[in-house]
Amino acid sequence: MPIDQVAKNLNLALVHHPVVNRLGESIGSAVTNLDVHDIARTAKTYGLARYFITTPYADQHQLLRELLDHWQTGHGSRSNPARGEALAIVRLAQSPLEVVAGLTELYGVRPLVVVTSAQARPNQVSYQELGRTIREAVPVLLLFGTAHGLAPELIEQSDYSLPPICGGNGYNHLSVRSAASIIIDRLLGS
Amino acid sequence: MPIDQVAKNLNLALVHHPVVNRLGESIGSAVTNLDVHDIARTAKTYGLARYFITTPYADQHQLLRELLDHWQTGHGSRSNPARGEALAIVRLAQSPLEVVAGLTELYGVRPLVVVTSAQARPNQVSYQELGRTIREAVPVLLLFGTAHGLAPELIEQSDYSLPPICGGNGYNHLSVRSAASIIIDRLLGS
Repeated sequence: MPIDQVAKNLNLALVHHPVVNRLGESIGSAVTNLDVHDIARTAKTYGLARYFITTPYADQHQLLRELLDHWQTGHGSRSNPARGEALAIVRLAQSPLEVVAGLTELYGVRPLVVVTSAQARPNQVSYQELGRTIREAVPVLLLFGTAHGLAPELIEQSDYSLPPICGGNGYNHLSVRSAASIIIDRLLGS
Repeated sequence: MPIDQVAKNLNLALVHHPVVNRLGESIGSAVTNLDVHDIARTAKTYGLARYFITTPYADQHQLLRELLDHWQTGHGSRSNPARGEALAIVRLAQSPLEVVAGLTELYGVRPLVVVTSAQARPNQVSYQELGRTIREAVPVLLLFGTAHGLAPELIEQSDYSLPPICGGNGYNHLSVRSAASIIIDRLLGS
C-alpha cells in the first residue's frame, strides 16, 4: 500500500474536554494556537487527511474558525500559502465521541481508538505493531490530551494505549506538540 | 555505554543569526518563547545536557535571562518545577562559533557540527549512522535554524547534514519545534 494511502488511515484528535488538571480533576482546557499549527504541519507532512480539534465550547469553535479563515482565505493565505495547506486538514468537533461516529460513517467501520499518555496505561500496543496495523488499512484514531492529559474515562473507553515516550532518565514532560510529532514519525516515518 | 551518558554527547543549538528569510536574504530572527520551552522539554526528556540558544542581540539575551529566571528561581519554579528542570539545560551564546569553541574546550575535541534543513544538503549522514556515532562517544553539535532556515555559510562550514524529514508527499513545512523533537527521537529513541 503506498505510504500516501496508508497515512489516510491515521487520524488525530486533540482533546480539550474531558482532560485533567494538575490535581487530576476533570476540566475543559482552552485551545492553544500553536497546538493547532504545529500538529497540523506535522500531520500534513506525513500525509494525514484529518486532524480533529475537539472542544464543546462555542467560543472556542468561533476562535478556531477565525484562525482557520485567516490562513485559508484571509491575509495569511497570501503571505504563507503552505500554512493554509496544513490547516486545511483541521476539523472541528464537539467531542471524541462525535469524531468516532463521523469516522465510522466515513470508513464504514469503527476506527480503533488509541490513547496517548505520559504514563503507562492498560492495553498497550507497541509503535511497531500499531504502524503495521495502519499499513494493513485499519483506520485508527489517536487521541492526544491537552492540560495534564486525557480524563480517565477516555482512557478506559479506548481500545489501546501507546507507551509513553521515555528517554530513560525519568523526565518525560514533553509538550503535546512534540509528543504528537514523535508519535506520528514513529508510526509512519520511514 | 548507558543511554544517559550517550545523550551527553548530543548538543543542540537553535540559531537566530545568520538565518534566511523567505527571500533567502541573511537576517537575524527574534527568539520565540515556545522554541525555548518545547525543545528544552524534549531535550531534557532524552537526557541531553545542553541546549544552546544563539543570538548576537543583547535585548534577546536579556529577555531569555528573564524567562529562565522566572522558571528557575521565580514564580514559575514553584508553580511548575518540572519546567525549570528542563530549562536548566538552556545555555545562551552569541553564535554557533562560540558554541563550538566552548564544546571543544569541554570535550577536549572539536564536536562534529551537523546541520538540519527542510532541503537536502551536501555531506549527508543518515540518522542511523549519526546515532551510532553518538553512541561511540563522539560529541555532536546539531544546528537548527529559525525563520526560513540556516544561512548558507553555516551549512557550508558544517561537517555533515541530516536528510530532511519527509512524509513522501512533497509537503515538509515542519515547525522547528516538531523537527527537533523528531530528530532527537530518531537519534536517541529506543
